Amino acid sequence: MDRYRIKPGHKVRLDRFDPADTSAFDGDKARGQKRLLKLSEKLADLQELLWAGQRHRLLIVLQGMDTAGKDGTIRHVFGYVNPQGCRVANFKVPTLTELAHDYLWRVHQQVPGAGELVIFNRSHYEDVLVVRVHGLVPPAVWKKRYDHINAFEKLLADTGTTVLKFFLHISKEEQRQRLQERLDDKQKNWKFNVGDLAERKLWSKYVEAYQDALSKTSTPWAPWIVVPSDHKWYRNLVIAHHVTRALRKLNMAFPPAAPDLENVVVR
Amino acid sequence: MDRYRIKPGHKVRLDRFDPADTSAFDGDKARGQKRLLKLSEKLADLQELLWAGQRHRLLIVLQGMDTAGKDGTIRHVFGYVNPQGCRVANFKVPTLTELAHDYLWRVHQQVPGAGELVIFNRSHYEDVLVVRVHGLVPPAVWKKRYDHINAFEKLLADTGTTVLKFFLHISKEEQRQRLQERLDDKQKNWKFNVGDLAERKLWSKYVEAYQDALSKTSTPWAPWIVVPSDHKWYRNLVIAHHVTRALRKLNMAFPPAAPDLENVVVR
Repeated sequence: MDRYRIKPGHKVRLDRFDPADTSAFDGDKARGQKRLLKLSEKLADLQELLWAGQRHRLLIVLQGMDTAGKDGTIRHVFGYVNPQGCRVANFKVPTLTELAHDYLWRVHQQVPGAGELVIFNRSHYEDVLVVRVHGLVPPAVWKKRYDHINAFEKLLADTGTTVLKFFLHISKEEQRQRLQERLDDKQKNWKFNVGDLAERKLWSKYVEAYQDALSKTSTPWAPWIVVPSDHKWYRNLVIAHHVTRALRKLNMAFPPAAPDLENVVVR
Repeated sequence: MDRYRIKPGHKVRLDRFDPADTSAFDGDKARGQKRLLKLSEKLADLQELLWAGQRHRLLIVLQGMDTAGKDGTIRHVFGYVNPQGCRVANFKVPTLTELAHDYLWRVHQQVPGAGELVIFNRSHYEDVLVVRVHGLVPPAVWKKRYDHINAFEKLLADTGTTVLKFFLHISKEEQRQRLQERLDDKQKNWKFNVGDLAERKLWSKYVEAYQDALSKTSTPWAPWIVVPSDHKWYRNLVIAHHVTRALRKLNMAFPPAAPDLENVVVR
């Protein structure tokens, strides 16, 4: 699973990552789903420790093209986690008040507090992705942002936050099929957004923007993981693996009792 | 299940509610747990519709004595709900900034937005409970609050929020056992708070404060439900029942597709 983690300084070319890859798991979809169930239970246990300890913090960043599976990841990987201590932050088109501040202002407000697991469904990376592709600010402005972002994430890491960033990597053909399904399946109609078709035409510009972002902001303190996401079961497995491993590394235990409680009897 | 809902204007006496009651379910613990699993799945489906629709809002208020099971309710009743669109708000001792404002200020900030299901783990009711029992403000101040609270919840209801308030009702003996268990079980030690013993001594004052709150603030637009909570499985069942029923009543369906999408083909 380590092969998907981008080494700091590595120049990423997305065509070298197969979106349909399933090679880090020795088994098929059915076995993969069983394994995910086990990992989900483990993840729920670890999150209980995280919340009980009120000490460490975990930030998960999810990025990817439209239909890459950000929502599905939240539902399937984090579906068993206790809502207490787990929070999802969505970053949509900024409000007027948000635009009146620097672009990390609204993001900083949403970072996890003690014991929290927070999932960013899209994130500050949109400020070097959609903003760049649509030319919402000049290159001189967005080019400075990689350094800002690295410094911001360093602050989070230095003050006790584990940061994991997942790029959900799908092929252009896979996106076509998923968009078509949203049109054809009445239950999925509401997910279809006409704007998605216009964004799809900018696919290669997005690839370029993602490659730069992944290359410039995969740091020792906040690594990017490129997740092959054409197969949803495999995507879930890769993410669950990295999240549980990061939590295990914290070596958490239930907090000790307050002192002098040994002989207390409740009346 | 309707028997637990407090009629507006009814003067509540908690000793008329048996905390160990299980009479509204025709079955034992094992059957109750099976039923809960079904209800949990139904609840997860309904919450998906709620989030998809981005129109209705649901606010769940959980109150109860220490150890009554607020955390357990969140884990077991809402454990399968998608973290996307579901949020838990905890109200602890107010910060200096919070104290610099009226007592509903911090509460208003946490109410659900469109499509959200928000659980209040403790709430603005602490301002007529702990605040009253400990005399943190004079009676003339807290007595005005019932009207404020009713008006505040009316605002929420009038603007599209369904409000359900659950009082988790346990016996004093059940609390004794649960506190003792937290002392005796190493895995639960961390949940034990020495302050809980001091609060326990104020049991009858809390009963009085709860009775007043339940009597004065169970309204047509934001009813209180007194949940027999000595049996955890039954507590979960009663709450899951009322929450799913409230969501069903909204008659939600997946939002329709945007117009003119019928013949679109994705390329």
